[in-house]
Amino acid sequence: MKKLSFIDATLRDGSHAIKHQLTVSNIENYCIEMDSVGMDTIVVGHGNGLGASSLQVGLSLLSDYEMIHTARKYLERTKLGVYMIPGFGTIHDDLEPAINAGIDVVKIGCHCTEADTTRQHIEFARNANKEVYGVLMMYHMASINKLLEEVQKMESYGAKGVILMDSAGASTMEMVKKTVATLSENVNIEIGFHPHNNLGLAVANAYTAIQEGATIIDGTVKGFGAGAGNCQLEALIAVLEKNGYATNVDLYKLLDVNDNIMPQISNCIGGLDSLSIVSGMSGVFSAFKIPVLKAAKQFDVDPRDIFNELGRRKAVGGQEDMIIEIAEQLSNPLGSNEDDLTYQIGSLL
Amino acid sequence: MKKLSFIDATLRDGSHAIKHQLTVSNIENYCIEMDSVGMDTIVVGHGNGLGASSLQVGLSLLSDYEMIHTARKYLERTKLGVYMIPGFGTIHDDLEPAINAGIDVVKIGCHCTEADTTRQHIEFARNANKEVYGVLMMYHMASINKLLEEVQKMESYGAKGVILMDSAGASTMEMVKKTVATLSENVNIEIGFHPHNNLGLAVANAYTAIQEGATIIDGTVKGFGAGAGNCQLEALIAVLEKNGYATNVDLYKLLDVNDNIMPQISNCIGGLDSLSIVSGMSGVFSAFKIPVLKAAKQFDVDPRDIFNELGRRKAVGGQEDMIIEIAEQLSNPLGSNEDDLTYQIGSLL
Repeated sequence: MKKLSFIDATLRDGSHAIKHQLTVSNIENYCIEMDSVGMDTIVVGHGNGLGASSLQVGLSLLSDYEMIHTARKYLERTKLGVYMIPGFGTIHDDLEPAINAGIDVVKIGCHCTEADTTRQHIEFARNANKEVYGVLMMYHMASINKLLEEVQKMESYGAKGVILMDSAGASTMEMVKKTVATLSENVNIEIGFHPHNNLGLAVANAYTAIQEGATIIDGTVKGFGAGAGNCQLEALIAVLEKNGYATNVDLYKLLDVNDNIMPQISNCIGGLDSLSIVSGMSGVFSAFKIPVLKAAKQFDVDPRDIFNELGRRKAVGGQEDMIIEIAEQLSNPLGSNEDDLTYQIGSLL
Repeated sequence: MKKLSFIDATLRDGSHAIKHQLTVSNIENYCIEMDSVGMDTIVVGHGNGLGASSLQVGLSLLSDYEMIHTARKYLERTKLGVYMIPGFGTIHDDLEPAINAGIDVVKIGCHCTEADTTRQHIEFARNANKEVYGVLMMYHMASINKLLEEVQKMESYGAKGVILMDSAGASTMEMVKKTVATLSENVNIEIGFHPHNNLGLAVANAYTAIQEGATIIDGTVKGFGAGAGNCQLEALIAVLEKNGYATNVDLYKLLDVNDNIMPQISNCIGGLDSLSIVSGMSGVFSAFKIPVLKAAKQFDVDPRDIFNELGRRKAVGGQEDMIIEIAEQLSNPLGSNEDDLTYQIGSLL
């Protein structure tokens, strides 16, 4: 039984839940308590990774540098990591400074069919002797064979492992089982899983992934995260221990962080609302929730219909502009059921 | 593929979450919206069932009669049900009046090894031509063979089905699989499952139960319920539909209840805190949370240690008095690790 690694994304993916407004104090208190819990790595940064702070996806309170610098002071037993999506961040402006600031782990992410875009970044981090993982986002949108090709590319670039990100929380347990089993059997590097809880299955999916050979799980404390939230680490550790797995995690200390630290960050964490569930069903990136609600209000349409259309169009992360377009079309009775040309002709009549 | 029935416990089990303070208005608005969603039955009442309102387990705002009477006015397409634990309620004072008030469904519950205590009540309700289900609470505490005996007893009394209640949210998916498969294969009546979300597995456990032959699931909207909460109906319906099951539930209407009605009842629903998880790990009835926290505060001890001791003693629902005793012993350094006699001698020194 290979050693399990838990990567704590609370201060990165969790950041979405509070619109990236984590403070220095939040990060300090969190890292001080969390360092001795037994996580492999704690990741910090904007919800969309290094370099992502912007008007389009949300400005963060602190710069990437401030977050890394703060966390670096308090993490001794746990590695410090960052996440970056090429396009949102660049090697020169974001990755290199982060490495210089003393991070240990780099996770480079891309849409599940675009591993090519991560080559330079993975190689750069490997050459800097950092531990590097590739992340395939919205993994449910590619066939298992295609995923295998993408994993093998990342392996060739020097990634230590590849993490499948269930960005939309759209996975059923069967989907996780088949995908992780196939990938684990066919590559030598580690396979990881990053659940989201849109269908209430985050813990179950993480557990299923581990049963099928995954050795890395991304989760957060209290499931803190965008929309439906992430895999709740405390619940997963409890399930694993109940099933006889050795986690090397101090569960009581982890629960203390839940009790004592998380209320400083947010006073109502957890609970699936209807948009979370609809995004899970439609397979749409859960972080779209805030722009979807905004556009729905602006155009007076049902936000769930926007999600369904985004799912139909197989929208991926980074395509927030499409939301306004869809909402506008839905609000226009002529345009909503016609193709673009008819819509344009109609608007001229 | 047998028809699936969903029993909505939001206005009964969910009541624990707000200390049984549901109002007439809450019940009215809820039933008006929920009646056309497609639930088989909506259950109303005190969290611990008919007759349970008391200082010990919590006084409810409304009497059982008021709750039944209010719901009865607005449920036409969905059956109205009640839950009763013999001991908390009696035939004469509670069950018979409820039947006279026009309920359709009766659920009679007991500890998982005590089906004998339900015989008179199940027979009474059957003789009144009501649809009757037995409920085996804390089912994880009995062997599968013992559970089978108890289910067969309830079957002989006239129960249409037996629902396994995972009162402590202690079930792993493997446990659910083995138990439900064995029972389904060996009895003719319906088998149901009532998850709790202490280990983040409520939806997964409900799904697993259905895969193994369960045809009844108890859940709540938004997972609203005591402690860790119940199986979130919206998430379960979404998972089932994604897996090709016919649920006959209007998911959008169900999601509307989540969005529009639940905020009237409680403004922060969901999220597993540390006590929820510890109670799931120790296998202790989750509704102990409030008295455990109170006793922990009173005696200045760690509430998780109280839970672990309750689990060690295999405490069951109704034994809230034991909590004070344990907390007292934990707070007394002499008494906490000794047996009762030594404790008594020690306190005389």
